[in-house]
Amino acid sequence: MSAEIISVGTELLLGNILNSNAQFLAQELAELGIPHYYQTVVGDNVDRLKQAISIASDRAQILIFTGGLGPTPDDLTTETIASFFDTPLVERAEIVADIQQKFAERGREMTDNNRKQALIPQGAEILPNPVGSAPGMIWNVRPQLTILTFPGVPVEMREMWQQTAVPFLKTQGWGQEIIVSRLLKFWGISESSLSEKVADFFELDNPTVAPYANFGEVKLRISAKAASPKAAHQIIEPVEQQLLQIGGLDCYGSDDESLASVVGDLLKITQTTLSVAESCTGGGLGQMLTSVSGSSSYFWGGIISYDNSVKENLLGVAPKALSEFGAVSSQVAEQMAVGVRSRLNTTWGLSITGIAGPDGGSETKPVGLVYIGLAGPENEVTSFAYHFGARGREWVRQVSACTALDQLRRKLLTEPLPKEDPA
Amino acid sequence: MSAEIISVGTELLLGNILNSNAQFLAQELAELGIPHYYQTVVGDNVDRLKQAISIASDRAQILIFTGGLGPTPDDLTTETIASFFDTPLVERAEIVADIQQKFAERGREMTDNNRKQALIPQGAEILPNPVGSAPGMIWNVRPQLTILTFPGVPVEMREMWQQTAVPFLKTQGWGQEIIVSRLLKFWGISESSLSEKVADFFELDNPTVAPYANFGEVKLRISAKAASPKAAHQIIEPVEQQLLQIGGLDCYGSDDESLASVVGDLLKITQTTLSVAESCTGGGLGQMLTSVSGSSSYFWGGIISYDNSVKENLLGVAPKALSEFGAVSSQVAEQMAVGVRSRLNTTWGLSITGIAGPDGGSETKPVGLVYIGLAGPENEVTSFAYHFGARGREWVRQVSACTALDQLRRKLLTEPLPKEDPA
Repeated sequence: MSAEIISVGTELLLGNILNSNAQFLAQELAELGIPHYYQTVVGDNVDRLKQAISIASDRAQILIFTGGLGPTPDDLTTETIASFFDTPLVERAEIVADIQQKFAERGREMTDNNRKQALIPQGAEILPNPVGSAPGMIWNVRPQLTILTFPGVPVEMREMWQQTAVPFLKTQGWGQEIIVSRLLKFWGISESSLSEKVADFFELDNPTVAPYANFGEVKLRISAKAASPKAAHQIIEPVEQQLLQIGGLDCYGSDDESLASVVGDLLKITQTTLSVAESCTGGGLGQMLTSVSGSSSYFWGGIISYDNSVKENLLGVAPKALSEFGAVSSQVAEQMAVGVRSRLNTTWGLSITGIAGPDGGSETKPVGLVYIGLAGPENEVTSFAYHFGARGREWVRQVSACTALDQLRRKLLTEPLPKEDPA
Repeated sequence: MSAEIISVGTELLLGNILNSNAQFLAQELAELGIPHYYQTVVGDNVDRLKQAISIASDRAQILIFTGGLGPTPDDLTTETIASFFDTPLVERAEIVADIQQKFAERGREMTDNNRKQALIPQGAEILPNPVGSAPGMIWNVRPQLTILTFPGVPVEMREMWQQTAVPFLKTQGWGQEIIVSRLLKFWGISESSLSEKVADFFELDNPTVAPYANFGEVKLRISAKAASPKAAHQIIEPVEQQLLQIGGLDCYGSDDESLASVVGDLLKITQTTLSVAESCTGGGLGQMLTSVSGSSSYFWGGIISYDNSVKENLLGVAPKALSEFGAVSSQVAEQMAVGVRSRLNTTWGLSITGIAGPDGGSETKPVGLVYIGLAGPENEVTSFAYHFGARGREWVRQVSACTALDQLRRKLLTEPLPKEDPA
């Protein structure tokens, strides 16, 4: 038993819109525990839509259509489904009345075009649309084949899904067994290195464990199937503990946590504050930190020292360090961190200076070379050098900001705090 | 003759990620004039992937796969394609060498897992990956059937598509009748207002005109079909001129231009410099400005004054203004702009202070209230107040930064520059 999502719309084939409906429905199906092995996108074309119906109805028992329910001539999902299953369309008076009322509320007259939206196959149930004019349908075509249709407008589709489709699917016995997932997030380790360490876990059946990677971040998703959320969590728990032990410091958090939120939590726990000095990231590190609501309790601000004059005048970087070692150097990174920490009077000062590219690289200082500086509460300062490679300006900037947060995270996790002054 | 996109990945079926790759490829196929009637999403499963290949290879002549090229056991796109067409895999020494070199550059050792990425079907060509470790392939399986594979990571897939796949498809005769699009970009006008002004253009046939909106930005896409880029541009040109006239100052640019790049161009033309003072955006305005390569010639830096102490000590905001009017006020916005302009010694100072939410709002100062300050070369300063509404923290921050850039843009476009000192 499985479901299949069929998205209808030439605008999808032209790339005019993103198929966010398919993602939403996929998440919902997973939560209900309804297996789902294929998604199809097809244009507003009768023959090709019929081919998609033919293939899908041979391999799935629940077909979920989005799109093609509107009033225009190229909206042909309902009539094509009816025609494929040799079933006549009938006009439903309650739909006509509903559309008329909605139009009246907006001071408009219903057009003849809209009358078409009142036609559904004989024997199908109306799937009401509380938002827009186009209703969908729930149609038990035959034993082991149910069709649900939704308009393509995401806000309408979602309301109809939640209000009517989910309760219907639950009466069919779905949603009794659910899937719960836990996402472990890693920084500072490659996908292949992590995969080698945890390869045995990829063979598990329940829970399953699978790796993902994006923009320098690696994730492991643990997914369990069970009768209740609690039972699913009990299946996940021991595997999660093992993975956390193997991951060690490289695992920075889970689920909705970000490097910025985890660093924020650690700053709150340690009752310390942070300021940043940014060159190549130009504000991106500050933006990441302040994406966390409530960050004002530990993040005081920063200095974007894009021009060297700002590094000198506002951060107190020595002109000699700039001329001798260059703006992209460990010396300047350290002086930036020390400077911002002292000028903003925070516990920690974190700095980034590097070459984001595409221009500005040289043989000794290639694009992707980045220094991160970290100044701390006992006036200590360290720096870290990275070669991120010429992988695109935004990639270098994003990975630099994340790596800076990660270095502060490791420091906060492993260094004992200075003793409080007893005075 | 048509192409089909097959996206491989259980993470798509679970709804963990949006299928942005399919949208990108759909747009690219449209531009090349390659018909494309179906998209399929299938999980990391050999049998189901084979079924998808079977169906697609019966109805399309170009199969484009994304995903499943990584080093882990559930990455099985290449081996499944080879197996479906009964073709052995061969290890390609040049791929091994390339992966080894990329790992060495990052100071890492290649693992045994990565060796798997060097296997491609006998007879296939390597589709190089300039960004990551996983190459793809171009394989003429038989007359009238070509397979292209790409990793699922969008930044890698796009680079590979542009650098290798597009030139290859052009040698196959595609891209002769082409679609050329021009995107006009607007800020400061709603989609419905703009649509009302240009409604007649939506009826055009060649070029077509269609509106899009996202994150406060409104776009009009003009698309023309013709035998050559030159002919297409001639079709677009007169319509573009009309739309530009109707749009006036609300149209800030076109195609790849961003508010940051347009402001950058204007700063270069006027030979003026900019610094920023950011509160609720926390660095996002600076990040936007520095996303433009070469921005160091006009953007000198900024001060992230998240905490009030930073507003006072580094920007010189009067404590009285903070206590009397609050940090989110026109007075403080103006003092921030004046302060950063004078401390960083730039022509312009641009500031943002506001309530991004979800917390921190009040009856008189609700979430979404934002003040933008702009200080200029004759010591003049103005501010602008906005009620962006409680539409989410990131929405408010993003729209605030764009609106600040837009205000500076309008100022640069409409104000005559102060006369050069003749001395």
